Amino acid sequence: MFLHSTILAFAELLSPFHRHHLQPQNSQSQRILWLLEELNIPYNVSLYVRDPKEHRAPPALKAIHPLGKSPLLELPDKRVISESSAIVTYLLRTYDVDGRFASSDWINDEILTSFAGATLGPTVAVELLIDIAEKHTPWPLRYIVSAVRRGIQKTFTAAEIDKTLSFLETELRDKEWFNGKELGRCDVMLSWPLDTMAQRGWVDFENRFPKLAAWRRRILESDAWRRGIEKGNGYDLTTW
Amino acid sequence: MFLHSTILAFAELLSPFHRHHLQPQNSQSQRILWLLEELNIPYNVSLYVRDPKEHRAPPALKAIHPLGKSPLLELPDKRVISESSAIVTYLLRTYDVDGRFASSDWINDEILTSFAGATLGPTVAVELLIDIAEKHTPWPLRYIVSAVRRGIQKTFTAAEIDKTLSFLETELRDKEWFNGKELGRCDVMLSWPLDTMAQRGWVDFENRFPKLAAWRRRILESDAWRRGIEKGNGYDLTTW
Repeated sequence: MFLHSTILAFAELLSPFHRHHLQPQNSQSQRILWLLEELNIPYNVSLYVRDPKEHRAPPALKAIHPLGKSPLLELPDKRVISESSAIVTYLLRTYDVDGRFASSDWINDEILTSFAGATLGPTVAVELLIDIAEKHTPWPLRYIVSAVRRGIQKTFTAAEIDKTLSFLETELRDKEWFNGKELGRCDVMLSWPLDTMAQRGWVDFENRFPKLAAWRRRILESDAWRRGIEKGNGYDLTTW
Repeated sequence: MFLHSTILAFAELLSPFHRHHLQPQNSQSQRILWLLEELNIPYNVSLYVRDPKEHRAPPALKAIHPLGKSPLLELPDKRVISESSAIVTYLLRTYDVDGRFASSDWINDEILTSFAGATLGPTVAVELLIDIAEKHTPWPLRYIVSAVRRGIQKTFTAAEIDKTLSFLETELRDKEWFNGKELGRCDVMLSWPLDTMAQRGWVDFENRFPKLAAWRRRILESDAWRRGIEKGNGYDLTTW
């Protein structure tokens, strides 16, 4: 089984004034690596480095899947699964034979898994776009981009981020994991958007959302997470 | 069972120069109404009109769910399900007892359902944000917003939309539905992002993606879709 992951220089997509960053930084693959490690599944990682002058997916990755997006999970029979939540669902259904990571409330698991992608995803995408655009636009044009950013934050993203994280803080209650006593699909899926918000400094989790901060620490300090990091995929979400 | 739906005046979120639109226009509820009609489930619709001067969710809807977002499905036991894909999954698992809408390939169903929310969702969100911002900003400021829009389209959304729709066109092949012989969860979930792209004129489906155009016609001409529209929720995605 192969996990295909791209080393992206995302900044190039958004501004002609970017500097290239080729540190490994494919963020969305790390949660898959974390789950693969939790499940103790043997797997290989294929890293693709994108030419910073080439704005499209690397051709080798496009040969694996027409969208050319990573992460992609390639099964032993060569079937390729795209979409992180589909990969996570597949891995749990196939390899969690003891039901260790099963949810005691499948409706809540569906809600929170969708929440991570379809609700947090667009909010993170909009905030990330303007964050990167501002960071990579030189003065004096940055002045305009900063003003646009503040307008969008004021009318949309700031309230959205606050509302969604307040909901998650309440939802976690006194549980260790959103899934219950053990982590589950929704925990894996929620890790990336929350890490993006934390690493880029959009949210002060420790002071504003202490339960979510403790949940993040449990993940980041776990052996499986650390073993995933060691696979060389990288997880610095601030270099874009 | 209640489907809670808000009549939004979304434009107000993005520009101080908007005009208020109070036509029923809660887009994401229509696909739920469509499925409720396909499944022949008895249900009630609660429509909430938001005060155009109030930028938050209507208090009555916040009493139903802390995020105050619609659609929300309220079950007879008062449990409230948020997130469209969780609502759709719940309805199919609970009411499609004959498996009429079951997928013959659950992995593909997971991929396409996630694709609708977590991949198309952020792209639509970014394009919608700049589309609405441009539409509701007066000259001469519109000139700047239009330039920003063209920059974001050139470097991000235009290529994304083209790539994702080409993938879906290929994926549909000669099938009537993405799910197979009968429509399924992924068809329901894909309808909203594609309708947004079509109605707002971002994509010429008939000429560029004829299979997707035929798929959309099958939905829009179906009895269940029309019965859903008659519930008064509205589906004009261009009034924002």
